[in-house]
Amino acid sequence: MRAKLGTVFRFELQAQCPDTGARAGLLHTAHGTVETPAFMPVGTQGTVKGVLQRDLQSDLDAKIILANTYHLYLRPGHELIRRLGGLHGFMNWDRAILTDSGGFQVFSLSDLNKVTDRGVVFRSHLNGDEHLFTPESTVDVQMALGSDIMMVLDECLEYPASHERARHSMRRTIRWAREAFAHFKPLDDARRALFPIVQGSMFGDLRRECADALLDLDARGYAIGGLSVGEPRPLSLEMVEITAPLLPQDRPRYVMGVGLPEELPEYVARGIDMMDCVMPTRNARNGNLFTSQGRVVIKQSQYREDAGPLDPNCSCYTCRNFSRAYLRHVFQAGEMVFSTLASLHNLRHYLDIMSGMRNAILSGNFGSYLAERRAVRDAAAGGLP
Amino acid sequence: MRAKLGTVFRFELQAQCPDTGARAGLLHTAHGTVETPAFMPVGTQGTVKGVLQRDLQSDLDAKIILANTYHLYLRPGHELIRRLGGLHGFMNWDRAILTDSGGFQVFSLSDLNKVTDRGVVFRSHLNGDEHLFTPESTVDVQMALGSDIMMVLDECLEYPASHERARHSMRRTIRWAREAFAHFKPLDDARRALFPIVQGSMFGDLRRECADALLDLDARGYAIGGLSVGEPRPLSLEMVEITAPLLPQDRPRYVMGVGLPEELPEYVARGIDMMDCVMPTRNARNGNLFTSQGRVVIKQSQYREDAGPLDPNCSCYTCRNFSRAYLRHVFQAGEMVFSTLASLHNLRHYLDIMSGMRNAILSGNFGSYLAERRAVRDAAAGGLP
Repeated sequence: MRAKLGTVFRFELQAQCPDTGARAGLLHTAHGTVETPAFMPVGTQGTVKGVLQRDLQSDLDAKIILANTYHLYLRPGHELIRRLGGLHGFMNWDRAILTDSGGFQVFSLSDLNKVTDRGVVFRSHLNGDEHLFTPESTVDVQMALGSDIMMVLDECLEYPASHERARHSMRRTIRWAREAFAHFKPLDDARRALFPIVQGSMFGDLRRECADALLDLDARGYAIGGLSVGEPRPLSLEMVEITAPLLPQDRPRYVMGVGLPEELPEYVARGIDMMDCVMPTRNARNGNLFTSQGRVVIKQSQYREDAGPLDPNCSCYTCRNFSRAYLRHVFQAGEMVFSTLASLHNLRHYLDIMSGMRNAILSGNFGSYLAERRAVRDAAAGGLP
Repeated sequence: MRAKLGTVFRFELQAQCPDTGARAGLLHTAHGTVETPAFMPVGTQGTVKGVLQRDLQSDLDAKIILANTYHLYLRPGHELIRRLGGLHGFMNWDRAILTDSGGFQVFSLSDLNKVTDRGVVFRSHLNGDEHLFTPESTVDVQMALGSDIMMVLDECLEYPASHERARHSMRRTIRWAREAFAHFKPLDDARRALFPIVQGSMFGDLRRECADALLDLDARGYAIGGLSVGEPRPLSLEMVEITAPLLPQDRPRYVMGVGLPEELPEYVARGIDMMDCVMPTRNARNGNLFTSQGRVVIKQSQYREDAGPLDPNCSCYTCRNFSRAYLRHVFQAGEMVFSTLASLHNLRHYLDIMSGMRNAILSGNFGSYLAERRAVRDAAAGGLP
């Protein structure tokens, strides 16, 4: 369960699509190698909701998960987790872990938050206690958690934001990133990475300015943040399309908090290596299932007596063993097992898309893969606008 | 997933304790053989709450589970389940299933119920619809579910009940049992069993009268019902002690709805072969865990930083992989995974007790096993009164 000492964090670019920006690579971490492009299941509080760690590993073969610094800082506390072997030991997960900085949650979950140049003061959504996150403290928290990939504190703006507000905020994010890196430097043993986050709301010029400034940090990887905050999807893709090419070719690129299954290839086509989203597990719990044949809203009466598998093209435990009728029954009955079966399936659907893309890139067929996915998407109702 | 045609329901008595009434046997069903004494995890709505079927099978090696006729009759409906391969096919469980008759739930869950000699009229706890259960209809429902062991409709009294009321009710239960058997006879292919239920509240004479009358049915097994309804535990044990010896030696005996871990040996010592209880899974979800070292109420702050396993003497997935501190964290955080980990453990604790007892009986050591269990129980705080 302990990190293998001496393993240096390293990204290995394996292949690039000749037609698009898509890349395949290997992310070597102290807790195993992650094949990219990678989707990271979200394990907010030290558990991917509804899924046992062994199933995450042996069923889904997830190589990396994401955990939320804000939640774990508040409960059970990062120092407690440090004493119990870091998050890897605490949750008994010996593969890679990425933690966010907590910034996004401070802005979206806490009752009150006040941003100053120093950091952000906020009230716990659990008990109202006041806390301060600074660029330095969030590195310390993530070091205590023992993350393989840490994120710098950033300011997350609502959408829409004015150009002026976005510029002001983005420049603060740059200063915070510099402070985080200065703080991290003496702690750095090369076994983990600290990713800065490109902000700039939906303004291309600000995204460019931010990316440019962050390059100076010579980080082991870069994230693109501030997307999936309510903006139209073409705008998110445009921001990624502007930003990704500015980032170093030989470092992993991570778009935070995206996306729908049909969007994953779009981000990968724009040069993205890593993504995460609560959607597969959250939608699962709500009875919204992603399948190769489109969405299934399991509560619909059409599935009442449907003896077929959720997705005939899926080989997950759920699809191999249960009918849509059974899934509908346990959903309607409010049984926990539904959330588990649905989460196992939705996560597998995402991870299968990722490995499908990776194989296409490695075999030089991503261009046609993408064209095919777009055709399917456009043919389906509810495709991307 | 289908029943193996031609398998005849049969109980094979293997060993009897020379000192107590304890017995070890094999219950051969169309869906596999069940080693007795057996504890049946409760799968009310076609799922043992929080536990995947594969884990029930490969982790816990449960050979038989119990499902509730009342719940499945109301939702999704027994005819739907019949069309989808019976409950075995529907929930993808190819081992044995026992279903209760629904009587207990009608009396405990439904908004309104009215007992007549014909049966019991009740309102669904889901939508208030009025329904009628008769001795015949509950056999039909259980046949549709495809149960390996069905129970006759019985009237379940509250505790305490007067002798007169108990006698009246017990005699109705006998009449209902006769009607159920008369209805079952032409349907009987010897592959499943219908168990009558001995009632009589807490009155020895009524229990004797009921057992005596039910013997005429020459059933493949007998249940003792109407216990665990709020009476002091010594009274439950007394009723079992009176009733069990009256039942046929060569048929399985099932006490419904019991009990606590430390009570299981007491029932077995009195000649009981089968038990079921929601306690392992319900208590699990509430954070009450059974261990070889006593109860663990996981929310207690003493476990906050407890790096040890829940039960050092348990080899379940939970105890092999997670600390009490982690379990406390996911409980406090309201994470589903807690219920799953806790249910896996509590069920394993019960099933381990059962196999320990069975081994003791088979090796002729149940007398000393029982004495030891009683000593441990009496030494512990919160033991039986």
